[in-house]
Amino acid sequence: MKLAVVRQYRAAGAKKYQSPNMGGDMKNNRLCGLLGIEHPIIQAGMVWVSDWRLALAASEAGALGTIGAGSMTVEQAVENIRKAQEATAKPFAVNIPMLRPDAAQVGAAAMEAGAKIFITSAGNPAKIVPLIKRPDNILIHVVPSVKGAIKAEAEGVDAVICEGYEAGGHNSPFETATLPLVPQVADAVKIPVVAAGGIADGRGIAAVMALGADGAQLGTRFIATAECPAHENYKKLIVDSLDFDTCIIGRKLNMLRVIRNEFAKRMEEAEKKGATEEELFKIIGSEFNRNRAASWEGDIEEGAFQAGQSSGLVRDVPTVAELVGRLVAEYDAAVGSLKKMG
Amino acid sequence: MKLAVVRQYRAAGAKKYQSPNMGGDMKNNRLCGLLGIEHPIIQAGMVWVSDWRLALAASEAGALGTIGAGSMTVEQAVENIRKAQEATAKPFAVNIPMLRPDAAQVGAAAMEAGAKIFITSAGNPAKIVPLIKRPDNILIHVVPSVKGAIKAEAEGVDAVICEGYEAGGHNSPFETATLPLVPQVADAVKIPVVAAGGIADGRGIAAVMALGADGAQLGTRFIATAECPAHENYKKLIVDSLDFDTCIIGRKLNMLRVIRNEFAKRMEEAEKKGATEEELFKIIGSEFNRNRAASWEGDIEEGAFQAGQSSGLVRDVPTVAELVGRLVAEYDAAVGSLKKMG
Repeated sequence: MKLAVVRQYRAAGAKKYQSPNMGGDMKNNRLCGLLGIEHPIIQAGMVWVSDWRLALAASEAGALGTIGAGSMTVEQAVENIRKAQEATAKPFAVNIPMLRPDAAQVGAAAMEAGAKIFITSAGNPAKIVPLIKRPDNILIHVVPSVKGAIKAEAEGVDAVICEGYEAGGHNSPFETATLPLVPQVADAVKIPVVAAGGIADGRGIAAVMALGADGAQLGTRFIATAECPAHENYKKLIVDSLDFDTCIIGRKLNMLRVIRNEFAKRMEEAEKKGATEEELFKIIGSEFNRNRAASWEGDIEEGAFQAGQSSGLVRDVPTVAELVGRLVAEYDAAVGSLKKMG
Repeated sequence: MKLAVVRQYRAAGAKKYQSPNMGGDMKNNRLCGLLGIEHPIIQAGMVWVSDWRLALAASEAGALGTIGAGSMTVEQAVENIRKAQEATAKPFAVNIPMLRPDAAQVGAAAMEAGAKIFITSAGNPAKIVPLIKRPDNILIHVVPSVKGAIKAEAEGVDAVICEGYEAGGHNSPFETATLPLVPQVADAVKIPVVAAGGIADGRGIAAVMALGADGAQLGTRFIATAECPAHENYKKLIVDSLDFDTCIIGRKLNMLRVIRNEFAKRMEEAEKKGATEEELFKIIGSEFNRNRAASWEGDIEEGAFQAGQSSGLVRDVPTVAELVGRLVAEYDAAVGSLKKMG
């Protein structure tokens, strides 16, 4: 994709004072309209810790719940979709990371099982777009950049989630943070824009809506909830984290934001010394095992606890219903408190 | 400082839905009240490119202009202060980076010359607080973390500027981005909080006010103005930059965010290979010369063009008065467009 296209979009953006996406009555919110949800809030699909139970709780609370199929076999993904369908008539999504070699297979099985909303991430959605794009389906893609958003729109996705550097888990080498990223994406595309990375309360949602987003996606905040199947130690680590307690590991590999523990410190040290990819893979061992050690076994020293910089804003473990109610109240308080300058 | 203090503040923060700093009528805005300015906007003090002319234009436009003394001799700083004083009765600030060995001397000379508002950055303000803290003076310190903000408040500063990873120039190894940082700082301190990093338009100002900030500091955006003494090539590079065109160099040294050019790419490559500090210093040569090459000579390939990720939002080179008028209009449009969810 030529950067000239980005420049062209930017030139158009320069002429307007505000994005077409910005604000609007919640009844007319584009994301709520697209997805059929009450609040423009998406519970992020996360490997290992967002199964049908978390998705169900989020959807029942009026947000969009997401089953994170990234860590599931095709059969497990289908089972999770079936269970969510049996438990609620409300919409929910399935997240499929594109770095998975069998992403198209997961997508096909999920469609077959009746999933309607698909969120693709960590890669190019091109290989799955023709499969998913049916009149009944909605496809949302996660992007780290303006050019990624423009490309996804051109490929026909229905909305983009633009995710900043502060987000937990897989992260882009572009390193663009959410605050500068969102308005640039909002200026560049016409489809709805969801902001992700660094948001854990209603103030953050209000902030990204002011930037021109149509909604917000929260991941880390949803791990520290009663319904999330993550190990108690994972939730406790998030609650105990301060503002600088996460770090990026694997800048040379597949960048990952995790809570800084013994394992992460070893990675940081090795990277500072210029370790090769091979040496880094040796420290990691099995990423699968590191994730399981964190998510299911609660191995505080050696697990890979994927979490964002918003961990510092997470201070308790409420139920999902309590959390969503609080997000709405905080959002409304933030919006209500803003006074004009002019 | 014990992290227990942070945890105590955080526990207090958890009880409230919104920060005491949040919003409020602009007539009662705490930052405007503290500084005697019309709009809660600070033009950042920047080495090489923010002299008395830029500060004057910003202050005359109703924001707080700042003379960046970091790159000035004591005599030059005094001369800049005198010129600004002669040209305006409006308040302006002087920025003194604490990593400067003669920071206290600069502060003493600036006070002697009649400066009233001091912004300290890049280090611990402790050594200068007793000097500056007089009834007539205002001292603001730039911090990258909650613990930095709490420490600065305890030392008696009047306000903090919390600056995120997306900001241009010197940057903290904490890497916390503005969106997650601001609400955590707003929860932790009682003094006014200014947000910096990633903000280049009124949407960004509205966003950080929603997060609980009392105002916003913009740097990169003010470089691309008619009154800024930076070389035309510097302004053009910012205008041409996309969302991912800045990078961090010198993670092992004194982290600096610059526009990615030939010099920056050499640094990135060397760092990936695990270059030693010595090797990196060899590539840099003289930081002074690199900064001058960028700011005054416009050396596109070899200069160190300090700029933030908000460069992608900068699309023209207006006068400062035009810019501040636009920031206010954009802010008001963003605030006006936000609708409640509840």
